[in-house]
Amino acid sequence: MSSQTSWIAVDWGTSNLRAWGIGRDGSTTFSASSEKGMGRLEREQYPAALSEVIEARANGIETVDVLIAGMAGARQGWLEAPYLDAPADLRGLSAGAVSPSMPKEFRVRILPGVCQKSPGAENVMRGEETQLLGLSRLIPGFSGVVCMPGTHSKWAVLDGVRLESFATAMTGELYEVLRQHSVLRHSLNGNLDGPGREEGFREGLEAGLSHPDLLTGNLFTVRAASLLSGKEADWCGGYLSGLLIGSEIGGRKEWVGKQEVPLIGSPGLCALYTRAIEQLGGSARTIDASEAILTGLKAAREFDSH
Amino acid sequence: MSSQTSWIAVDWGTSNLRAWGIGRDGSTTFSASSEKGMGRLEREQYPAALSEVIEARANGIETVDVLIAGMAGARQGWLEAPYLDAPADLRGLSAGAVSPSMPKEFRVRILPGVCQKSPGAENVMRGEETQLLGLSRLIPGFSGVVCMPGTHSKWAVLDGVRLESFATAMTGELYEVLRQHSVLRHSLNGNLDGPGREEGFREGLEAGLSHPDLLTGNLFTVRAASLLSGKEADWCGGYLSGLLIGSEIGGRKEWVGKQEVPLIGSPGLCALYTRAIEQLGGSARTIDASEAILTGLKAAREFDSH
Repeated sequence: MSSQTSWIAVDWGTSNLRAWGIGRDGSTTFSASSEKGMGRLEREQYPAALSEVIEARANGIETVDVLIAGMAGARQGWLEAPYLDAPADLRGLSAGAVSPSMPKEFRVRILPGVCQKSPGAENVMRGEETQLLGLSRLIPGFSGVVCMPGTHSKWAVLDGVRLESFATAMTGELYEVLRQHSVLRHSLNGNLDGPGREEGFREGLEAGLSHPDLLTGNLFTVRAASLLSGKEADWCGGYLSGLLIGSEIGGRKEWVGKQEVPLIGSPGLCALYTRAIEQLGGSARTIDASEAILTGLKAAREFDSH
Repeated sequence: MSSQTSWIAVDWGTSNLRAWGIGRDGSTTFSASSEKGMGRLEREQYPAALSEVIEARANGIETVDVLIAGMAGARQGWLEAPYLDAPADLRGLSAGAVSPSMPKEFRVRILPGVCQKSPGAENVMRGEETQLLGLSRLIPGFSGVVCMPGTHSKWAVLDGVRLESFATAMTGELYEVLRQHSVLRHSLNGNLDGPGREEGFREGLEAGLSHPDLLTGNLFTVRAASLLSGKEADWCGGYLSGLLIGSEIGGRKEWVGKQEVPLIGSPGLCALYTRAIEQLGGSARTIDASEAILTGLKAAREFDSH
């Protein structure tokens, strides 16, 4: 198996790292992962963290050729890969890659992220740009708005392989910090996946979509509803999720409804975003995040050898 | 001194408790405080926490008459004082007070909070209703919108002693949880009060006032600006503060500009809210929070004896 591996694709995020062996014909020869994401590593620990994940698979390969996307290229990561500037031609990702020092049997490159320096709209991404390059392969000729829901949701305006501009919404992280650290935790302390979650999500989504400008106020509804109407943790968790997703999308109505919005993310989260987009009269299509990044890493490597 | 004390007014919040001795002529005979707020107390610890603060002052008083406003009356406090329903006549606060059991030389009453049960606008307050009753004395005949900035900012529509409706914005708490627990903490780790704070506040305020609907997105600007433009913690802290206050007020533009908005809170925070309101063409007037609650407690006691 491992003798067929031609190179190794790596998605190195904040909380974990995933690696795929790629054969000469483009097929996946193995996949492996570890929880040694950027958030848990000091700079000098990266070579060992990479070796641990791939070494059993890399035996017998003369040169271990590794292409990495994501947070390993951040300033606080392994080796900083300076951002490309948006608008950016994503075929240029490989040319912007950096090579950390490794024993000579390794050839490791880390792709850059993309930044946007426009005053008032400064922004950064690392990893999503490679997913977007993947999307340009998965939906050839796509031109329009792409949404990548998650801890920090990204909304990108893409035209083929050209990334025009993008925005970030801290939706997933807001959910987590409010659930764990705010007064709302008292209302979210219980079974979050009970039968009330659906009703809570629906009401929160409606509030967020119709009044994204009142988010700081509507958040407190979670607490008031549990105190006054005895709403349980499941309803409250659903409301908070719906309110945050609704506020994210409700503030970007101009980006929804013109054409199908590709959603790159986990199936569960993409299903919630699809509901929100459909409620505004739009439509969405889910693309698996792993497929997008793997396709993007393959595309980046191809452009490299051109 | 203590022999002149007629009764004791107490503001018992989540993080501390403050007590004032009141003489027969309404003057303050002493003031004392402790950090034994609701958040730090079990139910059975309230009597001792109260005694500790007032006992040195209460010697020689035959009946220690204590009137309490705030979180001591919450379900998780000393003894639940069921909410009045908004719209509410604040002269009815005393009639809704509850009496926890105490030795017979004490007469202790806890004022209720106010709730709002309207579907989609459920809300609760405890303590602010007493400040609002105080405001009705401090600005006789006032009718309009009052803002009480803080951890959970309250906006109330008041007509004399009648509380028509109210809303909450989790502005102060959002600042704290984002500063301490989100990815933004990396950008806020340093001197928050440096010279860049003013510029950051101004830019954040502008973004929040003009686009309260994009709050989840603009939050990430803090991170991007520190990564791309080398903004320091002072700028980032100012931006976050301005963005959150701007978003709170920007979503309520219909409440600002018609007439002077009384602000009940700390002078520093009220100064920031005043800037935001003035930027929308309105005007504001700061009322000290302690003066408001003390005046409110006195008024509640007077209505009680009528």
